[in-house]
Parts: sequence; structure tokens; C-alpha cells
Amino acid sequence: MARIQLGMVGGGNDAFIGGVHRIASRIDDRFELVAGALSSTPEKSAASAEALGIPRSYGSFEEMAEAEAAREDGIEAVSIVTPNHVHAAAAKAFLAKGIHVICDKPLTSTLEDAEALAASVAEAEALFILTHNYTGYPMIRQARAMVASGDLGDIRIVQAEYPQDWLTAPMENEGVKQAEWRTDPARSGAGGSVGDIGTHAHNLACFVSGLQIESLAADLQSWGKGRKLDDNAHMMLRFAGGARGMLWSSQVAPGNENALKLRVYGEKGGLEWSQEDPNYLWFTPLGEPKRLITRNGAGASEASQSVSRIPGGHPEGYLEGFATIYNEAADAIRAVQGGASRESAMGVLPDITAGMAGMRFINACVTSSANDAAWTKL
Amino acid sequence: MARIQLGMVGGGNDAFIGGVHRIASRIDDRFELVAGALSSTPEKSAASAEALGIPRSYGSFEEMAEAEAAREDGIEAVSIVTPNHVHAAAAKAFLAKGIHVICDKPLTSTLEDAEALAASVAEAEALFILTHNYTGYPMIRQARAMVASGDLGDIRIVQAEYPQDWLTAPMENEGVKQAEWRTDPARSGAGGSVGDIGTHAHNLACFVSGLQIESLAADLQSWGKGRKLDDNAHMMLRFAGGARGMLWSSQVAPGNENALKLRVYGEKGGLEWSQEDPNYLWFTPLGEPKRLITRNGAGASEASQSVSRIPGGHPEGYLEGFATIYNEAADAIRAVQGGASRESAMGVLPDITAGMAGMRFINACVTSSANDAAWTKL
Amino acid sequence: MARIQLGMVGGGNDAFIGGVHRIASRIDDRFELVAGALSSTPEKSAASAEALGIPRSYGSFEEMAEAEAAREDGIEAVSIVTPNHVHAAAAKAFLAKGIHVICDKPLTSTLEDAEALAASVAEAEALFILTHNYTGYPMIRQARAMVASGDLGDIRIVQAEYPQDWLTAPMENEGVKQAEWRTDPARSGAGGSVGDIGTHAHNLACFVSGLQIESLAADLQSWGKGRKLDDNAHMMLRFAGGARGMLWSSQVAPGNENALKLRVYGEKGGLEWSQEDPNYLWFTPLGEPKRLITRNGAGASEASQSVSRIPGGHPEGYLEGFATIYNEAADAIRAVQGGASRESAMGVLPDITAGMAGMRFINACVTSSANDAAWTKL
Amino acid sequence: MARIQLGMVGGGNDAFIGGVHRIASRIDDRFELVAGALSSTPEKSAASAEALGIPRSYGSFEEMAEAEAAREDGIEAVSIVTPNHVHAAAAKAFLAKGIHVICDKPLTSTLEDAEALAASVAEAEALFILTHNYTGYPMIRQARAMVASGDLGDIRIVQAEYPQDWLTAPMENEGVKQAEWRTDPARSGAGGSVGDIGTHAHNLACFVSGLQIESLAADLQSWGKGRKLDDNAHMMLRFAGGARGMLWSSQVAPGNENALKLRVYGEKGGLEWSQEDPNYLWFTPLGEPKRLITRNGAGASEASQSVSRIPGGHPEGYLEGFATIYNEAADAIRAVQGGASRESAMGVLPDITAGMAGMRFINACVTSSANDAAWTKL
Repeated sequence: MARIQLGMVGGGNDAFIGGVHRIASRIDDRFELVAGALSSTPEKSAASAEALGIPRSYGSFEEMAEAEAAREDGIEAVSIVTPNHVHAAAAKAFLAKGIHVICDKPLTSTLEDAEALAASVAEAEALFILTHNYTGYPMIRQARAMVASGDLGDIRIVQAEYPQDWLTAPMENEGVKQAEWRTDPARSGAGGSVGDIGTHAHNLACFVSGLQIESLAADLQSWGKGRKLDDNAHMMLRFAGGARGMLWSSQVAPGNENALKLRVYGEKGGLEWSQEDPNYLWFTPLGEPKRLITRNGAGASEASQSVSRIPGGHPEGYLEGFATIYNEAADAIRAVQGGASRESAMGVLPDITAGMAGMRFINACVTSSANDAAWTKL
Repeated sequence: MARIQLGMVGGGNDAFIGGVHRIASRIDDRFELVAGALSSTPEKSAASAEALGIPRSYGSFEEMAEAEAAREDGIEAVSIVTPNHVHAAAAKAFLAKGIHVICDKPLTSTLEDAEALAASVAEAEALFILTHNYTGYPMIRQARAMVASGDLGDIRIVQAEYPQDWLTAPMENEGVKQAEWRTDPARSGAGGSVGDIGTHAHNLACFVSGLQIESLAADLQSWGKGRKLDDNAHMMLRFAGGARGMLWSSQVAPGNENALKLRVYGEKGGLEWSQEDPNYLWFTPLGEPKRLITRNGAGASEASQSVSRIPGGHPEGYLEGFATIYNEAADAIRAVQGGASRESAMGVLPDITAGMAGMRFINACVTSSANDAAWTKL
Repeated sequence: MARIQLGMVGGGNDAFIGGVHRIASRIDDRFELVAGALSSTPEKSAASAEALGIPRSYGSFEEMAEAEAAREDGIEAVSIVTPNHVHAAAAKAFLAKGIHVICDKPLTSTLEDAEALAASVAEAEALFILTHNYTGYPMIRQARAMVASGDLGDIRIVQAEYPQDWLTAPMENEGVKQAEWRTDPARSGAGGSVGDIGTHAHNLACFVSGLQIESLAADLQSWGKGRKLDDNAHMMLRFAGGARGMLWSSQVAPGNENALKLRVYGEKGGLEWSQEDPNYLWFTPLGEPKRLITRNGAGASEASQSVSRIPGGHPEGYLEGFATIYNEAADAIRAVQGGASRESAMGVLPDITAGMAGMRFINACVTSSANDAAWTKL
Repeated sequence: MARIQLGMVGGGNDAFIGGVHRIASRIDDRFELVAGALSSTPEKSAASAEALGIPRSYGSFEEMAEAEAAREDGIEAVSIVTPNHVHAAAAKAFLAKGIHVICDKPLTSTLEDAEALAASVAEAEALFILTHNYTGYPMIRQARAMVASGDLGDIRIVQAEYPQDWLTAPMENEGVKQAEWRTDPARSGAGGSVGDIGTHAHNLACFVSGLQIESLAADLQSWGKGRKLDDNAHMMLRFAGGARGMLWSSQVAPGNENALKLRVYGEKGGLEWSQEDPNYLWFTPLGEPKRLITRNGAGASEASQSVSRIPGGHPEGYLEGFATIYNEAADAIRAVQGGASRESAMGVLPDITAGMAGMRFINACVTSSANDAAWTKL
């Protein structure tokens, strides 16, 4: 089957997430990266493209969208991996040309941008896929399926947390590029930790529980000296239907590297999953011994096996989970190219709706915290 | 050294915590249990006393206080292990006779009772010791000492949780005695999970961090059908001095037996401890590999070694932690008998102040939740 | 019920295991320690007895056996907690007087002594109980019961290991008393690590699997400079009936405190247990998710519950496991005093047969290793 | 940089390891798979090639070697992923044409084949790389570097184990293709578990410790009904220089998926690593708290960081470790193409020497076991 011709916006040298997208696009061999507008200047872009063996380089995403749309062998899809404030404009440019968009999260840096982008997506014929990559982990898929099938009974409690420690010291003042833009409201938006990682925890909590947050009460803090955005956020959650929860995001908790963790409890049982040990899922049916289900091992269901590549005991990781989003994006693109509806093609892929939910989440966090943690609707 | 003559109020057949106090009082061989008013009727009390080999049995705590105070070889201390609503009256009866009191937590079932008891304690010459037993764990002692000595730098974040699952189903309607009184406001007080276990998490968070909670915002729920008290509580914490935290207590989280867990983060490092694996303490100095410190193992400090009995790798557990409270109570009793001041004798033993803090914590939880989780001062 | 009057031989100041026996004897309140010959001289013995609140002190075990047997209120049982080379003579002295013996392991320092002791035990009316304390852990009891009931099918493989690190450096040359006698053939016998800890691993492997070792091939080493006894031992095992296994004991494996671990695999499932986390038992039925069974938690059977004191999630440890041996010893003593046969009274308590098996194990290890690891019958 | 043109022998439909090699070759974007002789017949090969998007398909490896060597744009390297008995002939065919060989392990099915292949490798100018993939894990690299730099002092003990459970039941009689050839001496060689997985454990033990096995005493068993090759192997190891060790390989240990584990102890400290949780490395310096070093986290050294792709806390897994072998193979191929010596180009890549060591290991295991576990030189 022919590989999908792919372009990339952002992701030049030193950009962590750009490299991740490229590996993820290769793992299942569904894409061929042939074009890029990788950096902020044509020269840097060209240098990065050459270093990466990408044949066509452009000076800007606008130029790229124009030129690729005009080629017969032009890109069919584009990955947008810039800082948040560029997402909306870039995505709109490619959607307008009928090029499918795979966009990093959070959706945009402002709610206004997000709404404009959502309008464009609604009008477009191309697909818009948001890389909430943690939904690609096999055991997250299984957790979602187990909740949906009633293994936990009615859901009562959802505990989500995402602590990190890399901003414990004020790295943004020490020349760390990743730290600079992520702590800059102009480039990241109104949310600090809540935007960068809280959105992942929020997304995952909803993805697995099948529930939507109705309102939240949030207490945001900035511990790094001179930091403008939150680097630690505490919040309580009320889900539609009555379930309750808590969410903690932090970038200042020493000893935590990327410790996204989700726990869901219903009247019949519980589930626990940790991103740093992603091949395991604890299932705790009430009154029975705890069960440790392993990816592709005994107890693994179709939901997790279908997105696994190798046998149990051979750990898959972050890149494979990310690759599953790309693999399913390829399926979806081929499906709509073959005439399927956008909705049916998307399956469980994170979409503009998930992106808008994330933006409303960030907004509610910031608003609630400004109102002394008053309950705030999403 | 002569053993301290001990009495017990409550703790007859089927009472979990009474048996725990008795074992704890024996482990370090500092007490001899010689008198009891173990049950609600003289007959039951006598039967329990005989079964337990306790020589003197009384029909009520009033009678026991009176009689023992009159004996030359009467009890020097009494353990009060009744349901919460009896604590205050019993404690006052013994304090009035100069008999030292070791009382289970929470302090009382109502704030009024607590204040009255506090007044009695203030006037008494005898000691009042509250068995916040989790403070007796060696690695908790070490954690406290490490925070106090600045190993973590200024504390920023305290995450405490105490999930259980034993009330997931409405056990109080199925004849489970433990469940009956713990879900009954008349016997337990205004707090359900927040009183029974939230107070432990609160106490431990303060004990280790050295900080006091200034205000909290709490969202309490009752999931068990017809249950009057909370069985799940979410809350955000603001500590005096600026640190922030979260606390979760639950009795309806399937798969959690007694999963008290504390995490403390400062600008220089973090600590993590779990009650179910109490011989381990994670210390995560920023920028260094995680260190797993073991009780009486390499890295264990005087603070934990001094309350350990056996070498590292030979696990001590819940009963030994509890016994440390008894052992230190014996030290304190002998010290005041020898003329020491009550304050110097108490050391780090949990006292009436900790008990009052717990009562204010319960009250603040209930008040805040009734006000839609408004910030409420303690 | 009246407490059993207990004496102790050995266990003076600084003796680790003596203190353990004393706590273990108190936990379930079945014994009262009233007499001792705690040290090598009458003066030291008296000082230790006074410090410990033991009313009667003797200058030697011979004197104690004589005097106590003559008293109407004399001891009914004695704990022998000396270095290994004293076990036999002491045990025989008390057995000859009809006093029940609770003896630390290994049985003796030489096979000759062991055989002589076995002969005395066979003739005696009193009980002889060996404190293979690890058999007292609740989850070990459950593991044994699960194997016996066929949950694993026919047993194929038994992997036992017991690494420690305390003799990595030559501590015996640095004045550490524990290290001195344990590395001295005159006091410990022919086995170093195999005698001190290998016997525990051997005992546990047999206790849980229900199998006996037919022959073994062992490679023993001494890494500590100038050390006369093995401090690391590797061996392969052949069990009667065909199962195979491995056993590793070490005192020179840095990072291991007391890491006794047992894994048993049959045609239908497996079991894994670690002494340092004793409240957990992994059960892995073939083709099903791994199950983590917790002490007194869901999935805990009668075999473990009956030797548990407190609810699941409230960790019991080394001392409680040891106390179970004492508690069952009390049951057995009362039973034979009431006329029961010795055999029926002993139940699963480790006895002279287990002790002799341990001695043959040590002997086989040393013999095999001297013959270049030739297979050696036990 | 231009991608290396790659061919593949074996790896048609249903072949687990072929798919792994393909993903591994793509992850770091250094190879382009352009030719294949994927199956045993030209028709099946062509069908597989088409399904995988491989442009050139051949009916046999001989044909492929011939044809590709004749093309100007022919393959520069070939991956051999057939059952073991085909390795030697295929490798020799490509080496003879100057095409670099990346070959799955174990080297061959017989020692004779292995020696013949070794002779061919010695004469060839092309590289021969054996995919002992577990050496590609970052924390294994760090472990090796730590041992080499003396962090553990002189190595005393090496404990390796590799239990699995997939052959607990006789799957080879139930049509499982993987089980069929791996239990067939004609296709696998004389070793069952020792050849399939024991060689990995052996290789890793030597790779990390820097030591070679001098002799071993092995006890091999076949538990599966009618099984001709060992499915469980116990052995004791003696390393050149005096260190000792144990190795256990099993395919019949229920609950173990792919539980390769290595522990190395020296006079100054220890290391522990588990393949199923590969991003962690325990370092236990004697007398200090245990340290948990994480991939690309605090404490990670250049040795592990240089083969990591993403930050700590973002787990890399089996495929990434495998990809590192491919990435370094690409470096090595480009280096020799640029004139470097084969030796300097290979770096730490597993080579024919490692392959021969593996063959001698299998042979020694089988020979020793046939001689009642007599010590057998490698």
C-alpha cells in the first residue's frame, strides 16, 4: 500500500516533539516525510531538512501549503509541531488546501484562535487530528473499553495526576529553549502546567471514563521565580452524571519525570495506569484479588491487542503509543480518500472536539483560580 | 524497669482497634494490662476481661476510674478505644483522677466535646496522648527529620491521600459492626471518611511537613446508598507560609485496602511514603537519582533507627509503628512521674493540640463542602 | 487462659535474635518470660535479666534446667537462642527435665550433635520446636495451601534465593559480634551462608512446595578476605518426584538486606513471594492475568487469615510471622499438656525432622562443593 | 544522509522477528528496505513483499545475493531473520558478495555451521552483525559502562535469568508455528530454551560484566510432553578471573512473559536490571541507599544517553533497543564504506565472536547436562 506523503511544520533542530512525530510517523511505515517548513527562517529550515533527508524545504508554512497543493505528488497530510501560538494559522492554511492536518496539542494558545480553527475544521473536507498521544497506549485503550463495557459499574471517582520536575528551578532563565516558550504566555497561552500537561491528564481522564467535566474548582500557583504561568495546579472536578475527581498537574515536583497517572473507580471495581510503566494495567474488581493485566499478555483484550505490535513482556513505550495515533491517522486518511465520512473515519482519534474541550479546560482552570477556586463551568 | 499498670476502656470482642492497642502495649514490654471496662455491660465486660486474662473488670469507665484511683496498685494509665462519642467523657473521668490517658483518634465526635476535653487536659496533671499511630512509623520519623533539617528546601507542595474500599458496598446495612458505628453521625461525628481516615492523612501531612493548614476547600460525597456521612472527600489545602496541597480520603475506591500515602515536595527535593510498604522512603533530591531509603538500612537516620527494633530487610509493620507510640508514652509517663514537665515529656507524641487540629479539620471539611467547597479556615 | 511460663537461654545484650524471640513471645500474650540464663557468665546474665525485667536469673543453662524443674511454678518451656554450637547441649538438658524447647535454627553446629539431639527428642515427652520463623508468614501459609490443593498442578520448578550484603566487607575483623560467630566454624558449623540463611531458603522451599530435596550440586565460595566459611553459595536442586530447582544464598550481594525470595512453578500456575514485602503473594495461573493476593485481603484464604492479626492493608511483618510460631507453640504445649499426642499437637510447626533436614542440607552443600559440585544426596 | 539500501531474508507473514527487524530498521531512518526473499517459495515471497511495500522480491536468498550484487543501486546490507538453520548459508552468500550482514541470533543451528560461518566472516570485507538486541537497551549500556569504570569494584557474582511461560503447555502440538520450529532440533539446533533465550542471558551477562564464562555446570530438562529440546535449564557459572554466577532459562514458568533479568555484584556495589522495565537501573553502592537511575534521567550517563531518543519518563522499549543495534550498524557500515577498519567500526556491536561464544555456550550446556551437570569448558 502506498505511503501517505507527509509534510511537517516546525520540528527543526533541538525541537523535542518534532523528532517524536517523525519517529512515530515511521514506525508503522504508513507515511513518507517529503516536505517541511521546519524552522522560523528559510535558511534554518533548509538546513534542518537536509540534515533529516527531507527532499523539499519551504521558507514558511504558507508557501508550503501553496506549493504542495499545486503539485500532483504533493503532500496529502501535514504534521504541525510548532509552539502553540502557531497551530491555528498553520492548520487553517493546510485545511484550506484540502490537506489533512495532524496537530500537536494543546489546540492553540488562545480560545479565540481555537474557535476560529474549529470553524475552519467544520468547513473543511480534510481531517483534523490532534496528537493526544497518550490515548494511543494499548492499556489506555483497554481501560476505556473496560469502562465502556461496564466492568467497573457506574463510575464514581476519577483521580488524574501529571507531575513533572523539570521546571523546579527557573530553567527558562538559563537558556533552555523548551522552558522558554512553555513559560511564555505569548507562545503557550494562558495555561502553564495546565496547558502543557494538565490537558493531557484531562483528556485521558475523559477518554477512559467516557465522561465529560461539567465544572472544576482550581488553585493554580507559580513557584518558579518570576514565572508568569502556573507551574503547579490543584483542582477538583465534577463530571456530568455525578462522578467526582481530582487533577494535579505540576512541573515542580522533584523526582517526577513524566508521571502521568490515572485511577478510575466505579461501584464494581477500579483501574490504575501509569504512563511511565505503560504496559501494565491494574484491574481491581471489588472483593477479588488485584489483577495485573499486561499488554498483549493474559487478560489483554482486543482493544489493546489491536494496537500492539509485539508480544507481552516485550515493552512498547511512548513512541509506539504515539505511532498508533499516526497509524490510525493513516487509516482515517485512506478511508476518507476512499469515500468514507469524516466521522466514521476518525474512530477514537482525538479530534477538534477534544481540542476544544482542552481549551475550555485551560480557560476554566485559569478563570476558577482567578476567582479563588470558585466552581467554573467548562 | 517496672511495667506501667494499664487499664482499657472499650475494646471488647470483635473490636478491631482494641486488639491493636493491646498488642501495641505489649510489644516493647512497658505496660501490663490489669483492668478493663471493655464493653457496654458489666457482663460482657467481665467475659471479655476473662477471655483476655485481664485481672480486674468494671461495669463502666466511671466505676473503673473511681476504683483504680483508690487502689495503691491501681492503673497508672488508661487506653480509651471506644467509638468516638465516648472519648471525651471517659478521658475526662481518668484525667480527673490523675490517670494518664492514651486515647484513640479522632479526638471526639463533636467540636463541643473536644473543646471541653481540651479544657480538662489543660487543667490536668496527667498526660493526654492521642494515638495518631502512623506518626510512629520509622520512615515517617525520618521524613519529618529530613524536612526539618532542610533536605527538601522550602516546602511547596503536599499531596496526601488515604483511599480504602471497604465501604464501596453499603456494609452498614449488612450487619458489619465496624461499618455501623463509623457511618453513624451520632457515634462518629460529622465526618465520615474525613473523620475516620482523613484526620490521619491530615495529621501525617502536618507532622512530616512541619506545616499547619490555614484553609481548605472540600467537596464531600456519600456514595453508599442511604449513607449519612461522607465516604469520599476531595480537598485542596493552603498551608500557613504558602505551601499548597491536596488531600483525598475515600472508603469507596475498589482495590485500595489502607492506602495512606504522603508526598512532600520542596524546592530542593521530594519525599514519598506509602503506609502499605512502610519500610521504604523515597528521597528524590532534584537532579540526582532517586534514592530508596530503607528502615534501618543504608541512609536511615537516627530519627528512624531510634524507633526501629530489628535490622533492615526484616519488615516492621503497623503494629510496631503503633507500639512506638506506646513505648514513647511509657517514656513520657515515667518522665513526668520523675518530675519532668508535661511538654518536655511528650516529645513528638501526638497530643491534645493534634487532636483539636483534627477536629477543626473535620469541621472545616464539612463546612466547606456545605458551602460548595468555599475556602474555609481551620 | 494462663500464660505459659517461659525461660530463655542466650539472648543477652546485643544479641539480635534474643530480642526477636522475646517480642515474638509477647505479641499474642501466650507466654510470660520468668527465667533466664542469658549470657556466658552469671554476672552478665543477671545484669541482662534485671535490665529486661526477668525475675529469675541463672549462671548456666544446666543450673536453670535443674532449678526450674524443681519449682512448682517453674518454666514450662524454654527458648534457646545461643550461637549454634550450644543448641544441642542446652536442648537436651531441658528435654530431659520435661521442659518444652523452642530452639533457634540451624539445629546445631555439627551433624553429630544433631543426631544426638534427634535421639533425645525422640525419647522425650516434651516438644521440640525449631523457629524456622519464615514459615509463620501468612502468605507463606497460603502459598503452601495453594500448592497442596493443586492450584499449581504438579510442581516442576522451585527457585529459592536469599541474598544479603552485610558480610560484603570483612566485618568479622572489625569487631562486629554477629559477624564473628557466624563466620567461625567452631561456633556456626561447617556452613556459612548455607547454614545461616541457606537453611531458611531450603526450609521454605520444601515447606511451600511440599517436596523434599533428593540431591544437590553446590558451588560454595568465600569472598571475604580470610573468611573460613562460605559467604556465597550457588546450587542446583533435584527434588524427590522429579521437580528441579535452584538456590542462591549470599551475604556479599550489595543492595540486598534480607532478600529471601521463593518462586514455585507448576504445570498450571506459579507463585512468587518476597520476604521483604511479605504481605503480598503473586499467583499466576497459566493464561490468566497475574493476581496479587494480599494478606487478609480479597483472595486470602483460611490458611493465611487464621495466622493474621489485623486487616489487609495494615502490614504485618517479621515479628508477627515469628510470633505465629510462638502462638502455635503455645497451642501445641497446651494440647500435649491436655493429653494430645506430640504429633497431632505440632501441626505445621517446624520440628526436629525439619531441623535434621537442614543439617543434611548444610552437609550436602559442603560435601558437594568439596567434590567440585558433584550431585550429592541429602 | 542517504539511507542504506537494505534487503531481508525470511520475515514473511506471521514471522514475529521479521516485523521487529523492519520496525527497528525504520525508527532512526537510516535504512530503506528495498529487496526481500521473505518466504520459502517465490510466490509467498512476492506476496509478502507486495504487502509490505518492498519493491524487489526474490525466490531465494541465493538469487537475491546474485542479483542485488549486480545492480548499481543494489542492497548494501541484508537482514537475515530466518529460523536458525538457514543463517549460515544465507550469511555466507551475502558476505561473499561484499554485502553487509545483520543476522538474528543464535548464530546457527550447529557448531559446525557456526565455525564455517566464522571462517567466511574472517575472510570477508563486509561486516557481520548479530542482533543480540538486548545490548541495545540504554540502561544496559550504562550498566556495562559502570562496571567498566569500576563503580562496582571487582565483580564477584553474576545472576542471570530469563524465564518465559509460553511453552508451559505443548503449544508445538497445537499448530503454533513459532513453537514448532523452536522445539525442532533440525531447525533450532541442540539447544531449546538455552539456544533461544539462554544465549541472550549469557550474552548480556558477559556484555555487562565484561567477563567471559570459563566453564559451566548445567541441568537441562524438557517438561513439555514429547518435547525433544530443553524448555528449562539451570546452570552454575565460573567466569575467567574467578567470578561466579547462575543462569536460569525457562519457557515453562507461568506468569513470566519475557522476564530477562540481570544482577551483577562486586565488592563495592551492585546493579540490577529487568528487561520488562528497561528504563530503570538499580545501583546499590555498598553502605549507601539504593539508587534508581532512569533512562535519560538524573544519574544517567553518556553511555545510556547517547542511545536514548526521548527524555526520561517517556518510556522507550524493546523496539527502540533493537533500533539502536540497527542505528549503530548503519554507523558501522558507513564507517567501513568510508575506509575505517572493521574492528574500529563495530564498536560494541555484537559480532561473530559473540555469536561463536553463544554457540559454545549452547554446546557446553548440552554437553554438561548429558554428563550429569559436570563442569564443562566453553
